[in-house]
Amino acid sequence: MEIITVVPFLTMAKKVLIVFAHQSSGSFNAAAKSAAVEVLAAQGCTVEVSDLYAMNFKAAATAEDIKGDVKDAEHFRYQEETRLAWEEGRLAEDITAEQTKLSEADLVIFQFPMYWFSVPAIMKGWIDRVLTCGFAFTKEKRYSQGLLKEKKAMLSFTTGSLESMFSSTGMNGDMNVTLWPIQNGILHYCGFQVLPPQVFWAPSCASPEARTAMLEGWRSRLQGLLEEKPLSFISLDCFDPKSFQLTPDVQEKHASQEFGLTVGIHLGKPLPPQNQMKAGC
Amino acid sequence: MEIITVVPFLTMAKKVLIVFAHQSSGSFNAAAKSAAVEVLAAQGCTVEVSDLYAMNFKAAATAEDIKGDVKDAEHFRYQEETRLAWEEGRLAEDITAEQTKLSEADLVIFQFPMYWFSVPAIMKGWIDRVLTCGFAFTKEKRYSQGLLKEKKAMLSFTTGSLESMFSSTGMNGDMNVTLWPIQNGILHYCGFQVLPPQVFWAPSCASPEARTAMLEGWRSRLQGLLEEKPLSFISLDCFDPKSFQLTPDVQEKHASQEFGLTVGIHLGKPLPPQNQMKAGC
Repeated sequence: MEIITVVPFLTMAKKVLIVFAHQSSGSFNAAAKSAAVEVLAAQGCTVEVSDLYAMNFKAAATAEDIKGDVKDAEHFRYQEETRLAWEEGRLAEDITAEQTKLSEADLVIFQFPMYWFSVPAIMKGWIDRVLTCGFAFTKEKRYSQGLLKEKKAMLSFTTGSLESMFSSTGMNGDMNVTLWPIQNGILHYCGFQVLPPQVFWAPSCASPEARTAMLEGWRSRLQGLLEEKPLSFISLDCFDPKSFQLTPDVQEKHASQEFGLTVGIHLGKPLPPQNQMKAGC
Repeated sequence: MEIITVVPFLTMAKKVLIVFAHQSSGSFNAAAKSAAVEVLAAQGCTVEVSDLYAMNFKAAATAEDIKGDVKDAEHFRYQEETRLAWEEGRLAEDITAEQTKLSEADLVIFQFPMYWFSVPAIMKGWIDRVLTCGFAFTKEKRYSQGLLKEKKAMLSFTTGSLESMFSSTGMNGDMNVTLWPIQNGILHYCGFQVLPPQVFWAPSCASPEARTAMLEGWRSRLQGLLEEKPLSFISLDCFDPKSFQLTPDVQEKHASQEFGLTVGIHLGKPLPPQNQMKAGC
C-alpha cells in the first residue's frame, strides 16, 4: 500500500516549464498552453510559463548578456564569454532567471507557431541565450551525456500547412527532417529526453469543431505525458571519442539493417520512418 | 567584339546584399564578410551590408511591425496582419528598408556563425520579419514560383564542429539534413536560386594559417560566384496543385532510382548525397 501512495506523490511533485511564444492571448497556441497549464496543474504539477512576447524577451545574443567586463572585447566570442560569465555568476538577470526555472523543471514544453520551418526568432533567442555552455552542455557532456539529461523536453507547435504537405512526397518534405536539427541539435544536444512532438496541423484552416478536437486530443495526451517514452537517439558511447564517428563496431552491427540509425545519422540508408515523430522508431 | 564588352557590363551591374550577424568586427565572420565586400566590389558589384547587431535589428515579430491599427488585435495573426500591412504600405520602417535593399539585390549572402544548428536569433528575426507574405511569397507563388525567383541567395557560415562530425556517420549527423529546413524552407520557399553554401569548418579550432587559407578559398570562390549553378530543388509543376503531393507521374518516373529526389522529398529512399551542399546533386 505504501508503494501505491508513493507513486502518485512523485508524479505530483513534478515541475513543468512552458516556454511560450505567441503574441496573442486569443490564439490557438495560447489555448494549447492554457490546456497544458490546467491539465498538468490538476495532476499536481507545478507549472511555470515563460511568456516570451509578454516578457519582451531579448532575442539577440550580445555582450550585454554579460555583467562586467568581457574577456576579449575585440574578438568577442559569445559562447566562450558566456561560459565564463556563467561560471562567475555574471550572466544577465533575465538569462539567470530562465536558467533557474529550467534547473528546477522536470519537463520543458516549447509551445509556438512554426515560423519558417523552425521556432520564431524570440524563441530562438531563448535557446541561444539560456542554454549556456557550462550550464546546459560542455564539449565532454553533450548528447546522451548532456547536462540536462535528467529532464524531459518537447516541442508543441502549430503549422500553417496540412500534415500531408510535410511528408516524404509532399511539397514541404518530411517533417522528420525539419525536426531533426531542433530535436537533435538543440534538445538532445543538451541531454534532454525528447518526448514526441505535439503537432497541431494547420489549425487556422480547420473548423471550430476540428480545433476543439485538436485541443481535446492534447488534453488527453497531457494526462499521461510525464510517463511517455522519449524519442530514440544514439548514445554517446556509440561514437569514437576522438573522431566523433560511429564506432566500427556499431556500424558493422547496423550494416544489414534496412534503415539508418536516425534521421541525421542515416549511414546512407533510407531514414527510419517517423524517427523524430514517434517513440521507438 | 560588342558582345564581349556587354557581358562584363552586365556582371558589373549586379547588386549584392550581405545580411551579416556577428557581434565583433574582429571575428572570422567579419573577415569573411569583408572579403565578400572587397572581391565583389572589385568586380563592379554594388554591395550593401545589413550588419544586424550594429543596427540593433529587432528580432521579435510583434504588432509593432505594423503602423496603425491591426485588423484583429485579439486574435493577432502575424503573417496575415503583415501581409495586409505590406499591401497598404504600413510595415515598420526597418522592415521596409530591408525589403527595399532586398528588392534591388541580385544576390543575397547570409553570413553568420551557426548557432544551435541554425542561424542566430537576430538573423531568424530578419527572416521572420522581412520575408513578408505578399512580398516574398504567396500561397500560389512559392518554391520555384516564389516571388524572389529572379534572385540568388546563399548561406555562408562558420561551425564550431569539424566537417567529419557533420556526416551521416558523425555525431552531429549529415549537414545536408541540417541545411534542408533553411535552404528549402526559407530560401527556396521564396523562390531564391540557392547557391551551394560556403561552410567554414571550425575556424576557431584552426591555426592562423588554416584560417587564412579558408578566407583565400572564399575569395577565390567569390570571383566566379555570380556565375555558379544553384542547388537542385523540385519544380512546383511536379506537385499536384490540390494535394501538394508529387504527381503520380513524377513518382513513377523516379521509382527505379537509387536515391530520393531531395533531402526532404526523399520518397523513402536514401538521401541524394550532398544534395544541399553541391550543385547538380
